[in-house]
Amino acid sequence: MIIVKIGGGENINISGVIADLAKLDEKFIVVHGANALRDELAQKLNYEKKILTSVSGYQSVYSDDEALDSMMMAYSGLRNKRIVEEFQKNGVNAVGITGLDGKTIQGKRNKGIRVRENGKLKMLRDFSGKPQSVNTDLINLLLDNNYTPVLTMPIIDETGYAINSENDDVVAVLQKELKAGKVIQLIEATGFLENSKDDSSVIHKITKAELETKEHQVEGRMKRKVLALRNLFESSDTTVYISDGRTEHPIEDALNGKGTVIE
Amino acid sequence: MIIVKIGGGENINISGVIADLAKLDEKFIVVHGANALRDELAQKLNYEKKILTSVSGYQSVYSDDEALDSMMMAYSGLRNKRIVEEFQKNGVNAVGITGLDGKTIQGKRNKGIRVRENGKLKMLRDFSGKPQSVNTDLINLLLDNNYTPVLTMPIIDETGYAINSENDDVVAVLQKELKAGKVIQLIEATGFLENSKDDSSVIHKITKAELETKEHQVEGRMKRKVLALRNLFESSDTTVYISDGRTEHPIEDALNGKGTVIE
Repeated sequence: MIIVKIGGGENINISGVIADLAKLDEKFIVVHGANALRDELAQKLNYEKKILTSVSGYQSVYSDDEALDSMMMAYSGLRNKRIVEEFQKNGVNAVGITGLDGKTIQGKRNKGIRVRENGKLKMLRDFSGKPQSVNTDLINLLLDNNYTPVLTMPIIDETGYAINSENDDVVAVLQKELKAGKVIQLIEATGFLENSKDDSSVIHKITKAELETKEHQVEGRMKRKVLALRNLFESSDTTVYISDGRTEHPIEDALNGKGTVIE
Repeated sequence: MIIVKIGGGENINISGVIADLAKLDEKFIVVHGANALRDELAQKLNYEKKILTSVSGYQSVYSDDEALDSMMMAYSGLRNKRIVEEFQKNGVNAVGITGLDGKTIQGKRNKGIRVRENGKLKMLRDFSGKPQSVNTDLINLLLDNNYTPVLTMPIIDETGYAINSENDDVVAVLQKELKAGKVIQLIEATGFLENSKDDSSVIHKITKAELETKEHQVEGRMKRKVLALRNLFESSDTTVYISDGRTEHPIEDALNGKGTVIE
């Protein structure tokens, strides 16, 4: 069993990824993003990206109704269905669903962000949150009947609302339940880099222990990514491949260790 | 078992429909459109609607890649996921899929339209076709496990491509396999009208035989609709309700015979 996470960058070679996956003997499940597509769409539709600054100085994107709309169009609509179509053309009977469908990925909605507006303190609550659990019944029902789940945003909160979340966290909760032997993450870089500005500085092998050290060396979004990686090893032994999604054969390259292998 | 078709007009009271459905004891499956949303989106994105005129003078919409893109965003993305979300908020564990997913609705792609371009005859083939069969295994797998399928466009052709089709025809192939006791069609009119310009001219009861007579009295798109209705009775006895989707309780009203009942 393999969990494949396909990043949402615009240069990922989707047809190459799918052609590679179609050749595998192992079962797999796909989790994909679509942030480049979503941003492009939101811009064309004049949806404004709202960035809030909390009273403690922390900046975050405010996921309002429009943000969810554009996510549904880009992630659940265009990207998900084009990926499913490509799988079908390659003979893989894919079923594209979001975390909402069948409550596949259940999360906890964020309490809100404390902001100061016109001098007054205010809690602003948006449609975002963190995945907590997985409806493994539905995922296994699909897998056992030879359907390949292709999962994407949004996920579902405690009361049935669609919420935005991080795919890294979705992969972590999936791995906790599915205990996949391999997790492949395809990104728009050659792998986990020693120097983020140098594509040739790929670290080809990292151990779980080294990951912990790394967590203290990096910042911001990267820190969150390393933490999410560490979570993958919490529930079971697995091998994680972080590899370039832009090559001709992204999955083959990943499994051949061209990127970073963590075990 | 009920098949519910929700039209894609902008004034359908989606939350009313879903609140009504959530109260039913019978199992149901939903097929929905999103044409108003798709047209609005295509306009915002400056996607041009291409109308072809065949050499025989027949006009039809040319479904190119952009048309499929906007369909995927509006039907499979925004509309489908907002409907699933509303079901979830009402305690119904809905799973939104398209005809592509798990090859749920398999169709035959149209051969093409013969047009004259710069004096030369040419066949133009687009991404459209007619549904032929249903993957009842997947639909029953979902229903048997207490998931409510919420189906929409696109469907899948013989080679795995996403194609556009008519939801009326999708409902007809579904009914052929599922033999639902009731088929409810929610539209933006008070029912099947004697005079299309007079909302109060609803024909409350029609028999199968009368439907045949009607087919010869109407034209164009309406003729196709009546033919699709007739197809519903070909494989089994059922009751078809054509009713207003804009009221406070569209499903209750339909089942109470406020619109048109055909049996």
